Amino acid sequence: MYIDVHGHISAPAELYAYKAGLLSHRGAHGRGGAGLDKEQVVTALDAPNKSFGGVSHRAHLDEAGIDVQLVSPRPFQMMHSESPAKLVEWFTAETNDAIHLACQVEPRFRGVAGLPQSMELDPAAWTAELRRCVTELGFVGAMLNPDPYEGTAQPPGLGDRFWYPVWEALCELDVPVLLHSAGCRPPARESYSLHFVQEETLAVVGLLQSKVFADFPELKVIVSHGGGAIPYQKGRFYASAVRQGATFEEKLRQLYFDTCLYTADAIELLIRTVGVDRCLFGSEKPGTGSVRDPGTGRWIDDIHLLIGDIDWLTDADRARLFEGTARSLFRLDA
Amino acid sequence: MYIDVHGHISAPAELYAYKAGLLSHRGAHGRGGAGLDKEQVVTALDAPNKSFGGVSHRAHLDEAGIDVQLVSPRPFQMMHSESPAKLVEWFTAETNDAIHLACQVEPRFRGVAGLPQSMELDPAAWTAELRRCVTELGFVGAMLNPDPYEGTAQPPGLGDRFWYPVWEALCELDVPVLLHSAGCRPPARESYSLHFVQEETLAVVGLLQSKVFADFPELKVIVSHGGGAIPYQKGRFYASAVRQGATFEEKLRQLYFDTCLYTADAIELLIRTVGVDRCLFGSEKPGTGSVRDPGTGRWIDDIHLLIGDIDWLTDADRARLFEGTARSLFRLDA
Amino acid sequence: MYIDVHGHISAPAELYAYKAGLLSHRGAHGRGGAGLDKEQVVTALDAPNKSFGGVSHRAHLDEAGIDVQLVSPRPFQMMHSESPAKLVEWFTAETNDAIHLACQVEPRFRGVAGLPQSMELDPAAWTAELRRCVTELGFVGAMLNPDPYEGTAQPPGLGDRFWYPVWEALCELDVPVLLHSAGCRPPARESYSLHFVQEETLAVVGLLQSKVFADFPELKVIVSHGGGAIPYQKGRFYASAVRQGATFEEKLRQLYFDTCLYTADAIELLIRTVGVDRCLFGSEKPGTGSVRDPGTGRWIDDIHLLIGDIDWLTDADRARLFEGTARSLFRLDA
Amino acid sequence: MYIDVHGHISAPAELYAYKAGLLSHRGAHGRGGAGLDKEQVVTALDAPNKSFGGVSHRAHLDEAGIDVQLVSPRPFQMMHSESPAKLVEWFTAETNDAIHLACQVEPRFRGVAGLPQSMELDPAAWTAELRRCVTELGFVGAMLNPDPYEGTAQPPGLGDRFWYPVWEALCELDVPVLLHSAGCRPPARESYSLHFVQEETLAVVGLLQSKVFADFPELKVIVSHGGGAIPYQKGRFYASAVRQGATFEEKLRQLYFDTCLYTADAIELLIRTVGVDRCLFGSEKPGTGSVRDPGTGRWIDDIHLLIGDIDWLTDADRARLFEGTARSLFRLDA
Amino acid sequence: MYIDVHGHISAPAELYAYKAGLLSHRGAHGRGGAGLDKEQVVTALDAPNKSFGGVSHRAHLDEAGIDVQLVSPRPFQMMHSESPAKLVEWFTAETNDAIHLACQVEPRFRGVAGLPQSMELDPAAWTAELRRCVTELGFVGAMLNPDPYEGTAQPPGLGDRFWYPVWEALCELDVPVLLHSAGCRPPARESYSLHFVQEETLAVVGLLQSKVFADFPELKVIVSHGGGAIPYQKGRFYASAVRQGATFEEKLRQLYFDTCLYTADAIELLIRTVGVDRCLFGSEKPGTGSVRDPGTGRWIDDIHLLIGDIDWLTDADRARLFEGTARSLFRLDA
Amino acid sequence: MYIDVHGHISAPAELYAYKAGLLSHRGAHGRGGAGLDKEQVVTALDAPNKSFGGVSHRAHLDEAGIDVQLVSPRPFQMMHSESPAKLVEWFTAETNDAIHLACQVEPRFRGVAGLPQSMELDPAAWTAELRRCVTELGFVGAMLNPDPYEGTAQPPGLGDRFWYPVWEALCELDVPVLLHSAGCRPPARESYSLHFVQEETLAVVGLLQSKVFADFPELKVIVSHGGGAIPYQKGRFYASAVRQGATFEEKLRQLYFDTCLYTADAIELLIRTVGVDRCLFGSEKPGTGSVRDPGTGRWIDDIHLLIGDIDWLTDADRARLFEGTARSLFRLDA
Repeated sequence: MYIDVHGHISAPAELYAYKAGLLSHRGAHGRGGAGLDKEQVVTALDAPNKSFGGVSHRAHLDEAGIDVQLVSPRPFQMMHSESPAKLVEWFTAETNDAIHLACQVEPRFRGVAGLPQSMELDPAAWTAELRRCVTELGFVGAMLNPDPYEGTAQPPGLGDRFWYPVWEALCELDVPVLLHSAGCRPPARESYSLHFVQEETLAVVGLLQSKVFADFPELKVIVSHGGGAIPYQKGRFYASAVRQGATFEEKLRQLYFDTCLYTADAIELLIRTVGVDRCLFGSEKPGTGSVRDPGTGRWIDDIHLLIGDIDWLTDADRARLFEGTARSLFRLDA
Repeated sequence: MYIDVHGHISAPAELYAYKAGLLSHRGAHGRGGAGLDKEQVVTALDAPNKSFGGVSHRAHLDEAGIDVQLVSPRPFQMMHSESPAKLVEWFTAETNDAIHLACQVEPRFRGVAGLPQSMELDPAAWTAELRRCVTELGFVGAMLNPDPYEGTAQPPGLGDRFWYPVWEALCELDVPVLLHSAGCRPPARESYSLHFVQEETLAVVGLLQSKVFADFPELKVIVSHGGGAIPYQKGRFYASAVRQGATFEEKLRQLYFDTCLYTADAIELLIRTVGVDRCLFGSEKPGTGSVRDPGTGRWIDDIHLLIGDIDWLTDADRARLFEGTARSLFRLDA
Repeated sequence: MYIDVHGHISAPAELYAYKAGLLSHRGAHGRGGAGLDKEQVVTALDAPNKSFGGVSHRAHLDEAGIDVQLVSPRPFQMMHSESPAKLVEWFTAETNDAIHLACQVEPRFRGVAGLPQSMELDPAAWTAELRRCVTELGFVGAMLNPDPYEGTAQPPGLGDRFWYPVWEALCELDVPVLLHSAGCRPPARESYSLHFVQEETLAVVGLLQSKVFADFPELKVIVSHGGGAIPYQKGRFYASAVRQGATFEEKLRQLYFDTCLYTADAIELLIRTVGVDRCLFGSEKPGTGSVRDPGTGRWIDDIHLLIGDIDWLTDADRARLFEGTARSLFRLDA
Repeated sequence: MYIDVHGHISAPAELYAYKAGLLSHRGAHGRGGAGLDKEQVVTALDAPNKSFGGVSHRAHLDEAGIDVQLVSPRPFQMMHSESPAKLVEWFTAETNDAIHLACQVEPRFRGVAGLPQSMELDPAAWTAELRRCVTELGFVGAMLNPDPYEGTAQPPGLGDRFWYPVWEALCELDVPVLLHSAGCRPPARESYSLHFVQEETLAVVGLLQSKVFADFPELKVIVSHGGGAIPYQKGRFYASAVRQGATFEEKLRQLYFDTCLYTADAIELLIRTVGVDRCLFGSEKPGTGSVRDPGTGRWIDDIHLLIGDIDWLTDADRARLFEGTARSLFRLDA
Repeated sequence: MYIDVHGHISAPAELYAYKAGLLSHRGAHGRGGAGLDKEQVVTALDAPNKSFGGVSHRAHLDEAGIDVQLVSPRPFQMMHSESPAKLVEWFTAETNDAIHLACQVEPRFRGVAGLPQSMELDPAAWTAELRRCVTELGFVGAMLNPDPYEGTAQPPGLGDRFWYPVWEALCELDVPVLLHSAGCRPPARESYSLHFVQEETLAVVGLLQSKVFADFPELKVIVSHGGGAIPYQKGRFYASAVRQGATFEEKLRQLYFDTCLYTADAIELLIRTVGVDRCLFGSEKPGTGSVRDPGTGRWIDDIHLLIGDIDWLTDADRARLFEGTARSLFRLDA
Repeated sequence: MYIDVHGHISAPAELYAYKAGLLSHRGAHGRGGAGLDKEQVVTALDAPNKSFGGVSHRAHLDEAGIDVQLVSPRPFQMMHSESPAKLVEWFTAETNDAIHLACQVEPRFRGVAGLPQSMELDPAAWTAELRRCVTELGFVGAMLNPDPYEGTAQPPGLGDRFWYPVWEALCELDVPVLLHSAGCRPPARESYSLHFVQEETLAVVGLLQSKVFADFPELKVIVSHGGGAIPYQKGRFYASAVRQGATFEEKLRQLYFDTCLYTADAIELLIRTVGVDRCLFGSEKPGTGSVRDPGTGRWIDDIHLLIGDIDWLTDADRARLFEGTARSLFRLDA
């Protein structure tokens, strides 16, 4: 059984037209709404999509045999750095509502909440939407952007007390959080996609050098895309770990990582580095990787096939990786 | 016959979803495109629209009996202040293309070009798109935003030499320009809609205190929404005009104004102030004013009815106002 | 009887030389003072003034037959954006003292207080001077600048809680306030005079979209110069008013407006829009409009003659407009 | 015979009221003018002045027996940091014109020109006013402010090529320049008066560490107020001078200094440091020092008496100091 | 034979005391110099160093059996973001001179030049020092920092024309360049060491998305530390490469990479990703990794042992990796 | 007997190499330490030093016959404006520890504490280090920098309440404070050395115009280098002092001054201005002035010889100046 912890909503165009309108009138038309209905949502899930290799979201799930997908907002659309804050609040709520609609029409989906991470608001204020999604809409987790400035300024590091209200709410609601940055604006040199990698790298180091897990021992944090550069660059941290009397791998195992890496050698490196019990199957499917490799004919985001190719994994390993750990972390029904 | 010089495109949601995508990936996905086709455009023109009183764009034209409408981009969607500049260029071109498609499916439409007014570009660079629209797509005019910063900084006043490349291109192509601001971003105190009024007020004074019309005697400038505050506040400028040996009304008659004012008394004040030959019928229909007045049952943007109510206008006046001046300014076929 | 609610002090040159000194030494010479005496004040009121058409302040009053004039500081001299704040405090007090002196030598005058609106101070701190003027000097009202930054930054909108200490003091002292901006500094595109219009436009919309009148039902606010662009552009606000179940004219009638508009058609539009009972005679005489119109021979600021020309006003209307409303609002003795 | 090289104009209040107006309307009223006439100028020179100990400018000259006074603008009024630049240009010209008027009514005066030192202009542009004053108005020197930002930003040091157009014009016109800063604005910690001292200190070091005198061997520079801190702190520069094979006193003698120091011991230190031939009598009278010392009964700015008290000066020394050097530097008729 | 392309100078304390002095006097003491002599340099190379596990630089080389080491400045000491630029120029030259001295006393060393990368200078100005080092001091390569702002601002990406003068000089002198960032200052969230990883990630993508190798086909670029995150995250770039008709591995092979990664699995991933012929042995020894692993007893930076453990490498592979490619790229004598 | 109140530590190069390291890694290596031992300190004190005329610190003391020297950090090395604050804290403590070591090896030394004056910290936080030095290390005084921004921004003036926590701690511990600025960074026009003079000038005026001595009557403040420009420019303050009914000399005598002025005439002016009982012998030896005057053969910083040359001082004067006042202020054992 495949539980994919890293999926994003494929929403109707009207959701993004709504966003474009918000960014244009900046609130002058009031909150309004995208006005989505189930029919639009179904159509969007079933429409062949050029960005996804000409195939629909549901066709991708069918082909890969994904049984359950945890669905969060499209990160690059989240616009956390836009102003005034109410735009961020409105669009986040509308997006979470779209996810909720999708969960109603597609039984494979479980909701993962986006947060209205405007830096004009206090992080404590972000958690109201998290509570709404978990307690009212039945969502099973949250997604958190370590850089709500989206590349335009330096946010507090993830180890800073600034983020504590979020950790508190996550622990209280007992849901895991997926770390995943959103957009990246000029004059940054990187695209949003490369920004993901950079931010995940910072996130891992920022958390491990802090007291967050001492203060929140129950906190469950999943780093997207295999943890940025860290498993590959882990040796860089060995010396200081030695000086502190621990190994860096031990420290890394305070975190969880998804497998959304697109190559078998990288996934192997990840699993060997942090242990199979700290990895969760994540495909981000359909998405950036939904292109067929002309050599193999596979979709680039056929992460399940890449994992399937790793011959040294046991059946028990695979069960944990594809299902077990996700099921227990997100408290999904068996 | 009614020629409405002030209409904006009612485009499919996909155009704005395209815009939302650009703002999210900031160019990382490349230019791509909204991928509009005529069918989508027709659907958008015929779809009942809640923002427009539950009635479609074409139904509005039918009901008002508008024979020709000059169609420009929705100003508040133009995002001139976004970065990098290529986003502005791409979206402007895509919007002008959408207008071109609409002109093909709806014979009442004539195109008015938006310009990619990013302040990261030189105004001379903006005019390439103007040339494309006029020479390749058959557009008959242009729309110009006096505040490409959209409220975030002080642009050069319209009398400044900064704008001369635009005046030069307009004169060379012999097309009129409609002055109309776009968005307005925090921390400005006004909405985009009130910003229209403020910018038109500045535009009139900025042009009249400059040498623009001495340097470009052939330039044809139409100020939207009846010229902001100026006809009402004209007396404030009398004293300095007296000192210069002219009347302020004479100076005002270097400009044209549209009638998009929504009340008969304001339209009357405008016509009396600048003369009927300096006014053009403009309804911005459907748009902000597409709400039925519960008292009269009329649409608030039934500008043609308001003008119809002005009993002191002669038939010749009406003919000029509704058709003649527009026809000659924009060189429309009879 | 004519009560002119919008007059500004014609002070001796020494008051402004004092200001020039403050701006030069920035407080190094201490507060000092302009050292005005009644003789200087009388001389200044009776001196023919080139800026005022070669005629003195009192000769203007005589010629127009103004019986009572409410006299406030020359707004464009108020320098609210200068630093440090004590300069603003000192000059405001000195100016109010000059007005007090003028009230002593000229029985037609009543004082309207300027406030030391430095943004380095809290608005609550501004009200000390208001109290002094009302309780010690017998002033009957206040003047308030909605943009103490004088065009160099974005102040909080008038609906913001920032301004509540001022509304509280006005209600407690039971005096009306005249909204009137002060200077306007580069790089703004407009002169201080056009800034008046822009700020009044923002002021009206900012107040009407807020809860100020719900929170301060006794507050009496007079917008200068006929309310900027609003009566002319009122139709732009009809649609949203309809959606809220009110007419925009009803909302406008929460405010008062002065008639300082210089043309009969604009004054007519104002009266028809807000009702004669919401208009007060204001001439700003002598001032910007103190130039003779070569066509009519009238002074451009002969507002009383413009009103006199409006044939549809009844005698009762005129009595309210010229005297009654002012007398009751400002609680002037009969 | 006493030639005082450091006097400032005592202008009518109308000059400063004109300045206050410029700062308020920022050019919206046009250049206009202070409209001074000789009668006003005479009155201002003869009016007892509280800031000057209750005595008039001419009475001060009479009492001190000053035979010739070089008169420049009041430095602290020069407002070089105000914007837009035309305000600085207009007020500087108006001030120089006031000095010219004063020279016509008072035979003891010779004009020293202020320059319109706006940093929005190029220094080459400042020199037009210098040329006008020297060639048309007969002025004999110039005053230069080393900090046209008036404490709000860091200007180029006096050794920077930025200043070369000024040195070129001075050499071409063959007139000396008096270094004297103007105002000092927040958030600087010092008053304009202490800023004089700080700027003179920087000016001396800036010039002596540069190639200015190598490039302009004919340049004649007088540092006001005895050179700031330098004669007192000269020892601080000995070590580096030794390393360069010169004495610091030799380097200092490239400059001239005025004696405007108010205490005999400081004047003695100055003369001993730079040599009597590098000192010029300057009193800045009337001015900051025009207060009677209760102990001695003398005016604090009775610099001539302080010099008179120095018993080791020869008659020839005194002749040079009081007259000879000034006469030759400024090419005054015998 | 081991040629280590990634070594940094272990300089005497006096070099850094010189730097501390420069940062304190900011040039007021002139250039001066560290005044190093060969004896100090020898002492520094042979001194047991606590930061290096209590062992000297030369003892590390001896123990590892490194035959040739390419020695560049300690990157984190380079202070490219300090001001004024002359400090950077002086310290860079002094550091390169220290390297030159070290090459004279230690036959295993070859010099790799640091550049004075102050953003106050033009990159063309940086290349003078490169020329000096190559043509006068016999250096064999250069080190380049992609972020001369050291985390305080966004520099142009490596694909930008800004960097072309450096590429031109490298090609003209025919020497390779090692990409290696320097310091990282607050408010950045990362230490300089993590900044290395982030900058290398950006560098690889910035170069591969540009026309640099089309414009400079002879350019030889080595990315430090195994290329940041890229070999691990390579799959993220597969889809766009497919769309462009190439594989991402082909694109990566335009660059060279050093093996300074500290773990065998990462080095294996690197070699498999880019090919053994695109990898060079680099140990950064002694340095961050000079700590003994308590488990293995090895030094963490015993990169040669890690490579030795990779059993699938052929002898020919090892010869290329440890010697051949370095020898030909840097044109070292056999 | 000579007690020199103004000496700075001559520390081993390793202290400054430690500083250079901190500025490079910005804390990533942790606090670490300079690791100084007594042997290094002794060596540094006895090493001939090119910057000090080729003579060692102790040889200078021997030659001048200085019996006791109060030793504080080298001010220009203190780097108060560097970030993050912990760098300043660590380096300050390490420097004070070096001073403490020096006091242990050299019986003539007494410690004067530097404070970690980062503007990212509250002044109250600075005083912890002061307490440590006085109560644990036996230091006898403190040094305070009036400009912790080191020329990059405007700090609060010394009269501002910002500084009160420092005054409180000084009074509580009953130790004097030496005012002495530290570095001066671009774009300031002055070097750190000239900045000393400028800051001392501001310090004197800032304190004397404040209520500090009224609020802290026990506070003992010594201004370095003879008080900047003030004794020379004192006359500039006479007039305002007269207006306040005091003499400026009386006000000056609230402060103490050291004699570190390098010329006899300046020292004489100082003593005559403030009185011998307000002067303390200070030589800053060895330092900037440790160059032999080729004319006299003396060291420029032979302040004791300059004082010795002043023939009008009595033996009692000399005793106070060289020993008595220092002994009582700093409570040194007889």
